[in-house]
Amino acid sequence: MPSFRFITFLSDYGLENEFVGVCRAVIKRFAPDVEILDIAHGIPPQDITAGATVLAHAVPYMPPAVHFAVVDPGVGTERRAVVIESLSGAPLVGPDNGLLWLATEALGGPSRAWEIKNESLKLQPPSRTFHGRDLFAPVAARLATGMAGDEVGPEIAIDSLKRLVIPPATVDDDHIHSHVVQIDHFGNLQLNVHRQELEGIGVLLGDAVEIRLGGRSFTAPYDQTFSAVPDGRLVLLEDSYRWIAIAVNKGNAQHFLEAGRGDPVVIARIRRSAAASS
Amino acid sequence: MPSFRFITFLSDYGLENEFVGVCRAVIKRFAPDVEILDIAHGIPPQDITAGATVLAHAVPYMPPAVHFAVVDPGVGTERRAVVIESLSGAPLVGPDNGLLWLATEALGGPSRAWEIKNESLKLQPPSRTFHGRDLFAPVAARLATGMAGDEVGPEIAIDSLKRLVIPPATVDDDHIHSHVVQIDHFGNLQLNVHRQELEGIGVLLGDAVEIRLGGRSFTAPYDQTFSAVPDGRLVLLEDSYRWIAIAVNKGNAQHFLEAGRGDPVVIARIRRSAAASS
Amino acid sequence: MPSFRFITFLSDYGLENEFVGVCRAVIKRFAPDVEILDIAHGIPPQDITAGATVLAHAVPYMPPAVHFAVVDPGVGTERRAVVIESLSGAPLVGPDNGLLWLATEALGGPSRAWEIKNESLKLQPPSRTFHGRDLFAPVAARLATGMAGDEVGPEIAIDSLKRLVIPPATVDDDHIHSHVVQIDHFGNLQLNVHRQELEGIGVLLGDAVEIRLGGRSFTAPYDQTFSAVPDGRLVLLEDSYRWIAIAVNKGNAQHFLEAGRGDPVVIARIRRSAAASS
Repeated sequence: MPSFRFITFLSDYGLENEFVGVCRAVIKRFAPDVEILDIAHGIPPQDITAGATVLAHAVPYMPPAVHFAVVDPGVGTERRAVVIESLSGAPLVGPDNGLLWLATEALGGPSRAWEIKNESLKLQPPSRTFHGRDLFAPVAARLATGMAGDEVGPEIAIDSLKRLVIPPATVDDDHIHSHVVQIDHFGNLQLNVHRQELEGIGVLLGDAVEIRLGGRSFTAPYDQTFSAVPDGRLVLLEDSYRWIAIAVNKGNAQHFLEAGRGDPVVIARIRRSAAASS
Repeated sequence: MPSFRFITFLSDYGLENEFVGVCRAVIKRFAPDVEILDIAHGIPPQDITAGATVLAHAVPYMPPAVHFAVVDPGVGTERRAVVIESLSGAPLVGPDNGLLWLATEALGGPSRAWEIKNESLKLQPPSRTFHGRDLFAPVAARLATGMAGDEVGPEIAIDSLKRLVIPPATVDDDHIHSHVVQIDHFGNLQLNVHRQELEGIGVLLGDAVEIRLGGRSFTAPYDQTFSAVPDGRLVLLEDSYRWIAIAVNKGNAQHFLEAGRGDPVVIARIRRSAAASS
Repeated sequence: MPSFRFITFLSDYGLENEFVGVCRAVIKRFAPDVEILDIAHGIPPQDITAGATVLAHAVPYMPPAVHFAVVDPGVGTERRAVVIESLSGAPLVGPDNGLLWLATEALGGPSRAWEIKNESLKLQPPSRTFHGRDLFAPVAARLATGMAGDEVGPEIAIDSLKRLVIPPATVDDDHIHSHVVQIDHFGNLQLNVHRQELEGIGVLLGDAVEIRLGGRSFTAPYDQTFSAVPDGRLVLLEDSYRWIAIAVNKGNAQHFLEAGRGDPVVIARIRRSAAASS
């Protein structure tokens, strides 16, 4: 592989103790000149889907890099450790549990993949519970310095990689059945909905929609910015990743709606005669 | 402008998801050799005053740098995006909502300012809701590599910049009416009071003062270190930024006093005959 | 001393405000080419033992570096500020309150030590409450650029350094009296117990043990991975630092057991006829 100046790093390790710092140190021992770009380390513990979504959002903005990610509830079991080469050329390193899948797709899809089996790449003696430090960090560092994928272990079939799918929303006449894919730091609820689906039920910018969630119903306009509504009011907008999100202007939609990741949400068109007030 | 080796970065983006990492990556794409110095990313969401205070505390300690800051509840509205050149030579980049003002003053005040209007500087297509990534990060990166202020857009009047003022404490005979400007990680309450004002009401090092807050009254000595009082006791001291702060030795004044940012606090002289015990 | 490319940095400063960023900036002002490796900044406020444990876990994985650490409830008092040279060659910089001790031992033990007394090394004017910024960061930076230990102040006796000891577990026939040394981000409870002590009471891999904690009793297998038990069940395992830890597969043992750092824990052998279910 070519060498890479950057390694990106995402995990659910948190920043309270040394997990992240130790992984970064191990990378620096094997690749002192590489620069590490942290994506996020506050993924909810062991939440593969949350990690996969954040990683997929981030990688298109990264410079050419090795992408190193660990959310690994099955560490130490028979789940495979893998390197995936994406069509963009950037390799991804981590557990084969779906975590890397959405980012791989965001980088053009997989071109080749290998299972990490080469014992000589591991810190010795490797632990059973901290593969980020003992396995993935050394491999990521060496990939950044030009190691070929074939050196990590046997090539594996692309089709054997664990996939992770965000179920698409379903459109039913004048409403959309969706769910909360991701919740950001501000409490904005990102839905598995795009502008095209809203348009498909006849909702255009400036229209009001009905939002049904948790047995309750709310009205909000579909607009472009948080400030399109008064402070504390709901708004539906296309977020910075081109997904449709529910937000509260200068507030927190997660708290306001008592919503969680995965919750079902119905977005329904409101006939033009009704409308507007939430 | 001269080029800068460093870009400092402050935001209310948190570290749970990719916002900070993506902004850092965008900087690296445009200015691969710049070093990013994070100031803080845990500013309470959309709290411009908290962000402005933290930024102003930090910039005097930074090496020469472009200062990039985002706390931006009005993102996507008509609030301007600006570059301010400070008399120190360091430019500041962010929303024109007061966030940059105290730091600009700490860097000698503004010398020139420009509104960011040059569409070619933005990531394409720019979003309406994530100007940190799409607008401010690319501009900060290019300023660090030597782009002139005039290239970001039209120069604007210094007088038109949004200012943010920490209201001064008022001294009334033997007491000071102040408020909590900032609360740090340890729960220390920083007041809008300086040593001179304490001396103005006749309070000198070693004296006891009365602290009135939230309808309650406490007694504490005015001393130099946390350990001047027993564990768990209140002390008034000049903090490391030369502001007067309320602290609890080996404890948390915020929790002990149930205080919040902005809360009014009265500091009163205690006659020498009374004194000491809290 | 030799010069060092890296400075590691651990503190209880948190990431909400500018404390960490300002210390990093001060280092960069004195040693612009040094690279800073953050170990962790979320040590519980003023918890010296927690900081010492995390630091000791991390330093063996770090490249050659100056180790800079601050958890300093006695800042501004007569507690000394010190530089300790370890037998590995790496110097440690921080308060002489035990924080550095376990890491010094992990680096081979102390070879020499100095009290930081040289006023010309401090930021001027130094504060009484923020020695991380005003004292330790400038000293760490200059040590990294090759300053000799003798330049920081008088050499002090190794024997005079404040030590910190994790009390060893005690073995009593078929059970071990231990305590919770550390709790990580996932809620795993690290005990002051090693494999040898488990073997000493006759517990081998695959055996079940009784765990007594907080007046309650639990049964768990002693195994190698979290996934050795069903989701939500307790497991005892050797963690990635070769300490024995209590974990819950895909759960949080701290919450499940309502445990805190320092809590006493008894681990007892279960006769082979009983066993297994938790």
